[in-house]
Amino acid sequence: MAYFDNAATTYPKPECVYSFMDKFYRNYGFNVGRGHYTLSQKANNLIVETRNKLKDLLHCPNKQVIFEPTATISLNLIIQGIILNGAKNIYISPFEHNAVTRTLNYYEKKKDIKVHVLAVSKDLNYDLMRIRYQFDKNTPDFVIVSHASNSFGVIAPVEEIFKIAKEYNAITLVDMAQTAGLVDCNIGSSVYDFAVFAGHKTLYGPTGISGFVMNPDIQMPTIIFGGTGFDSANQYMPDDLPERFEAGTLNILGIAGLNAALNWIQQKGISTLLKVELENRKKLINILKNFWFINIVGNNESNEYVGIVSCLINGISSDSAGNIFDKFNIAVRTGLHCAPLAHKFMNTYPAGTIRFSVNYFTSDKDFEELEKALEFIEDNI
Amino acid sequence: MAYFDNAATTYPKPECVYSFMDKFYRNYGFNVGRGHYTLSQKANNLIVETRNKLKDLLHCPNKQVIFEPTATISLNLIIQGIILNGAKNIYISPFEHNAVTRTLNYYEKKKDIKVHVLAVSKDLNYDLMRIRYQFDKNTPDFVIVSHASNSFGVIAPVEEIFKIAKEYNAITLVDMAQTAGLVDCNIGSSVYDFAVFAGHKTLYGPTGISGFVMNPDIQMPTIIFGGTGFDSANQYMPDDLPERFEAGTLNILGIAGLNAALNWIQQKGISTLLKVELENRKKLINILKNFWFINIVGNNESNEYVGIVSCLINGISSDSAGNIFDKFNIAVRTGLHCAPLAHKFMNTYPAGTIRFSVNYFTSDKDFEELEKALEFIEDNI
Repeated sequence: MAYFDNAATTYPKPECVYSFMDKFYRNYGFNVGRGHYTLSQKANNLIVETRNKLKDLLHCPNKQVIFEPTATISLNLIIQGIILNGAKNIYISPFEHNAVTRTLNYYEKKKDIKVHVLAVSKDLNYDLMRIRYQFDKNTPDFVIVSHASNSFGVIAPVEEIFKIAKEYNAITLVDMAQTAGLVDCNIGSSVYDFAVFAGHKTLYGPTGISGFVMNPDIQMPTIIFGGTGFDSANQYMPDDLPERFEAGTLNILGIAGLNAALNWIQQKGISTLLKVELENRKKLINILKNFWFINIVGNNESNEYVGIVSCLINGISSDSAGNIFDKFNIAVRTGLHCAPLAHKFMNTYPAGTIRFSVNYFTSDKDFEELEKALEFIEDNI
Repeated sequence: MAYFDNAATTYPKPECVYSFMDKFYRNYGFNVGRGHYTLSQKANNLIVETRNKLKDLLHCPNKQVIFEPTATISLNLIIQGIILNGAKNIYISPFEHNAVTRTLNYYEKKKDIKVHVLAVSKDLNYDLMRIRYQFDKNTPDFVIVSHASNSFGVIAPVEEIFKIAKEYNAITLVDMAQTAGLVDCNIGSSVYDFAVFAGHKTLYGPTGISGFVMNPDIQMPTIIFGGTGFDSANQYMPDDLPERFEAGTLNILGIAGLNAALNWIQQKGISTLLKVELENRKKLINILKNFWFINIVGNNESNEYVGIVSCLINGISSDSAGNIFDKFNIAVRTGLHCAPLAHKFMNTYPAGTIRFSVNYFTSDKDFEELEKALEFIEDNI
């Protein structure tokens, strides 16, 4: 198989992720914060260490790391919490995922909030002047930006946008599902209130572990209630972080995998990982450009990207193309990639695109297999 | 180490759980329902198979299995969904966990609901006559019962209670966190609307995978919004089950572990697992009874139990006792076990108890180490 679906989940994981998960869970698979015996402390220490590794990676020693099972749940907890705190004017990028837009839609239909889309030009440049004008017209309470589009790979100038948002005292949230561990970002800066990460994507960990980093000064209600292993007599969720947002049993197996992945990222170096991914992106684009029937969508020399490339094939629907690629054992994702707003913006709605996503592990063999498939399509189109 | 904390998480897991998870995730760790290439179908097939194994185990071919990361999130989705549907009078057992009581407290404080506690005598017998009287006085909209208390191990006659609840057209929810895969239960019966399971407890799977079984005729709103991998253009969550309640990436690693665990349970046989656990419970109680300073709490010959035994030590707080046991490398859990209501009911609030929980894997060596520790306490008390 040639795997070009890394934006859905990175595959394979580094060897140390598989082996450390197995070893750790066999030896220390206890329930943390529930029993307090010495061996459960081993599991607890791993959790503390993993939080610290994430803080190191994101340069935010003074922020709080909260573990959640998925980026989706993380986004729900933050977005619903900030709305319940009273946010009315909410700005989003045109590239947001359904985890953001469906959550907002629920409150917008109840008329609790008004959603505005940040001004981005058709060549994918954020128009900071127009954004400031938008903010002047409707003061932002909350600004949400996907650091990189999961459909088109374009990186947003999130720090610049949030600097402006902070002039208007807005709360800020960056969705780093496609960038944490890949695109270096100073989340320690005061312009970032929340940053969401997905353990199984660019962080190279397993499914089942994700979370967010937050400014600990922000107080907000939670929408998930449950046991916290301490303060059990209290029938409200405790104010303490991270426990307020970590009801229920933590996924120690997933945290072990994420811990090993963070070690691997540290060893490789985040800049090396991005460099190799961008080299692979270039190889991919060079191959795609050789075929007249392929139209790459949303690729603009003046922007920065992660290893995600969307394209259309002349005369073939995205779904049919997906079936052809599958026959050649090439894993791609077709359609809207759970981000219909992004495809509306790029005029690829409702059929969507064919998405290729490369990463550090994408090999020459992968590219050769892709070329063969494209040659077959060329001969048979 | 002698492990008596199986009610927090079973440890160890069957060998096949560790080995199958590792093997499957290395070979098929793809994102399901996102890409549609052949190999991701392998992961998808495993998910379908695991849902079917759960239906077999719980005898409910016509119900729907929904995967969630934790039992806590499952309980939140159901309880909040049914309350948002308009439930007002909610009955709970006196043994509910904070995942239930903290969630209800949020709505009770908003005066959206009224919470009633089902009538249970001090010898832990559910008083069905009085429950009927309670239902006559305040018609139940929603009845929630922990199948077995996580603090005291007593099993509730849940089918009988729900039969009465159904005469009043109440929605029913059984929390099987301490019983799924251990205490056989005909969840296929129409008296059950919802049954929650915790993958990493009596089901012997890993952390990170849990969920619930539901009557598919019940329509309720969800409180978590996100991508479902299909129907992406729709800005509402789809009505389809299980997708409506499964926003975000499914934990395929956890599902692989749960799948192997379900195979193991099927091979051993649920009645054998319960038989061995109850034999171990008897061994445990016989040891505890040999020591004058131990008071077992909530153990009554006329009731049925799982392998959970709570006790107090004369003159020593539960926390101090926990420290002593830890010195002897004996894993127990002390305190309120996230179930303050249960401890109020048993008059062990707020200090809680020392909880020992055995299972199929509890060995004679575990019991010998426990005896040694108790002999030390006896000599030094």
